[in-house]
Amino acid sequence: MKNLTPLEEALKIVLENVKPLESERVFIHEALGRVLAEDVVSDTDKPLFDNSAMDGYAVRWEDIKEVPAKLKVIGEYAAGTGENLKVEKGTAVKIFTGAPIPEGADTVVPVEYTETQDGYVIVKKSFKQGANVRRRGEDVKKGEVVIPKGKEIRPYEMGMLASVNRAVVSVYRKPHVGILSTGDEILDVCEEQTKPSQIRTSNNYTVYGQVLQAGGIPHNLGIAPDEPQKLKEIMRSIHKYDIFITTGGVSMGEKDYVQYLVEDLGIDVKFHKLRIKPAKPVLFGVYGENKLFFGLPGNPVSAAVAFDLLVYPAIKAMQGHREVFKQKVTAILEGDYRRKNADRREFARCRVWFENGRYHCEPYPKQDSHMLTSLVNSNAYMVVYEGVNELKKGQEVEVILF
Amino acid sequence: MKNLTPLEEALKIVLENVKPLESERVFIHEALGRVLAEDVVSDTDKPLFDNSAMDGYAVRWEDIKEVPAKLKVIGEYAAGTGENLKVEKGTAVKIFTGAPIPEGADTVVPVEYTETQDGYVIVKKSFKQGANVRRRGEDVKKGEVVIPKGKEIRPYEMGMLASVNRAVVSVYRKPHVGILSTGDEILDVCEEQTKPSQIRTSNNYTVYGQVLQAGGIPHNLGIAPDEPQKLKEIMRSIHKYDIFITTGGVSMGEKDYVQYLVEDLGIDVKFHKLRIKPAKPVLFGVYGENKLFFGLPGNPVSAAVAFDLLVYPAIKAMQGHREVFKQKVTAILEGDYRRKNADRREFARCRVWFENGRYHCEPYPKQDSHMLTSLVNSNAYMVVYEGVNELKKGQEVEVILF
Repeated sequence: MKNLTPLEEALKIVLENVKPLESERVFIHEALGRVLAEDVVSDTDKPLFDNSAMDGYAVRWEDIKEVPAKLKVIGEYAAGTGENLKVEKGTAVKIFTGAPIPEGADTVVPVEYTETQDGYVIVKKSFKQGANVRRRGEDVKKGEVVIPKGKEIRPYEMGMLASVNRAVVSVYRKPHVGILSTGDEILDVCEEQTKPSQIRTSNNYTVYGQVLQAGGIPHNLGIAPDEPQKLKEIMRSIHKYDIFITTGGVSMGEKDYVQYLVEDLGIDVKFHKLRIKPAKPVLFGVYGENKLFFGLPGNPVSAAVAFDLLVYPAIKAMQGHREVFKQKVTAILEGDYRRKNADRREFARCRVWFENGRYHCEPYPKQDSHMLTSLVNSNAYMVVYEGVNELKKGQEVEVILF
Repeated sequence: MKNLTPLEEALKIVLENVKPLESERVFIHEALGRVLAEDVVSDTDKPLFDNSAMDGYAVRWEDIKEVPAKLKVIGEYAAGTGENLKVEKGTAVKIFTGAPIPEGADTVVPVEYTETQDGYVIVKKSFKQGANVRRRGEDVKKGEVVIPKGKEIRPYEMGMLASVNRAVVSVYRKPHVGILSTGDEILDVCEEQTKPSQIRTSNNYTVYGQVLQAGGIPHNLGIAPDEPQKLKEIMRSIHKYDIFITTGGVSMGEKDYVQYLVEDLGIDVKFHKLRIKPAKPVLFGVYGENKLFFGLPGNPVSAAVAFDLLVYPAIKAMQGHREVFKQKVTAILEGDYRRKNADRREFARCRVWFENGRYHCEPYPKQDSHMLTSLVNSNAYMVVYEGVNELKKGQEVEVILF
């Protein structure tokens, strides 16, 4: 098993060769899922002024120490009000949620603890000084960083951007990813079958979806024949893309031409085969300025697994994400799992569910690498480490949710 | 606390009033995250023909029972080959992965267990009959359902669609969602502040992102003033949308006009206030043909929480999703949590992380409902049930990941 690169080493090599892409400016409504390339600071104190947390009456706390207290209502403050009243001893201002606290007042009595009577309000419960008042700047101070560089923009961050008056922000650019299948036998969707030995494509479309899921911009370049000259011509387009992915052509077959072309194309190969199952034949190299080449296996499951393990983190990291891996959790294995050859680390497709405070895991019965059904019917990879031949029902296993 | 609807009851009412929308046809590349509105069946057996799982030699198993065995190589089968050779006693065909098994052969010997010699191959290891052969239909039979109606399309399903030659499939339509803020004091992004008591918007943008995240099509209808006639005019557009969401105007204030207008607009109100914290004032009603109205509170955190708990599942269900809720898991509480009033079920913003096989949870120190920072700095809601005043460090709590 020499010459097989362990997964950790492969990941280290890939991530060492990733630099976040340059930034671009996007509007809030396009920003979901993007990563901030700048610190966003608050344009004002938040709240901008002392205001009422309730509908009720703004009063001097001194006046409601003893209750019931009868206060003269001298006016009304609604949210967005422009009035200029002053609360003096024995008076109150009727106030709505969000309205500024009038001068002189320091406390708000919620409406449900009051009664009105001929222009007066009777306060029936006392409150501590400052009750129901939101203080200027108690959430955020002007100039304070409200969303740091490197944070992913979720809906809450979109709201926060609006609230600090940032219509446009800098985020890291999405990588353009070229996707090329290879193989004389591969038919594209809707292409007519002319020989019984032809196989309908799937890799270009699985990988297209995986690129989208990781936040990249996929470009489906179709299917290249197993002819070195034609293949090389098509692959000269690698420089148009930040990442170039091929499927097929990197195994040990004589007709696996991709591996023989990469050096001619100026790709600096960092590793070829991996100590994992499926997806042993994975070729990784770098070219141009921080551009990445992934030669994935042709088997549908192998290609998908290799993408999830290696390409997904690279696409995430290029966009500035801090968390670049799919979620890894511990699950209880329901049923035994055995394998003969324990040389490689295996990523067994499995079904994972959460029940009674723990994750549980059941491997899918068909694990062959040409069976896409094993992915369609699963939602996680169960990790079987090198040297492990057997996993027992009830033991804890590591799973990667997808 | 009477008149407050418990969350379960509210959810039941909302989901009872959701029907999946009609279906539409989309191409594979647009199908990510959509839900199939039809069963997808396989157009052929998969594999379509017996083929080799390895590069090597196709042989008669009888001929390699005893090894070493010397066999005459009568030709070569590559993937996509059109040749027509027959393997007879004492012969073999050189074969590549994916190539059809030639007539007469039943077993493939991987190339690494062979040696070639002047037109002959020497097989050095015996294999069981059928070894390294993928049998026709062993993954999927023609006409078999490969992706059932109601399943979400992930990248693997995109590959599967291609492999069964389905360029276009039926999925449930995405709902159009109108989003309207209310409040005289609310300034839109970039709008000039003319009075100190004005507040910059956030709700329209948080909700916009939340609708996108749930898979809906958001329409930002801006900010309506607290004037019943104008508000009513704007809200007449509810019939253009599958879901209409307002923020503000449903609390107990006299200026909370939304709640007084809904019946005039033909909205059949199913519940108003909820027994939850934050987000007590939530108004839900139905109108037209299975259209949903959500009057959410004006406080930024309350609006976001109410959306995540009630609107998110509704948008998911309208698109045919079976799993409509955000992921709920159990976590170990790190630190005590206390509250005075235990009347309502609380959704405390918290930080959750996975460590040593378990989730852990730490509530964010600021929980006021106007503080958007509590969401920006959190990744989950900790659920504090009705009647619970205190949670102890180390105990298990329920959290909803967002």
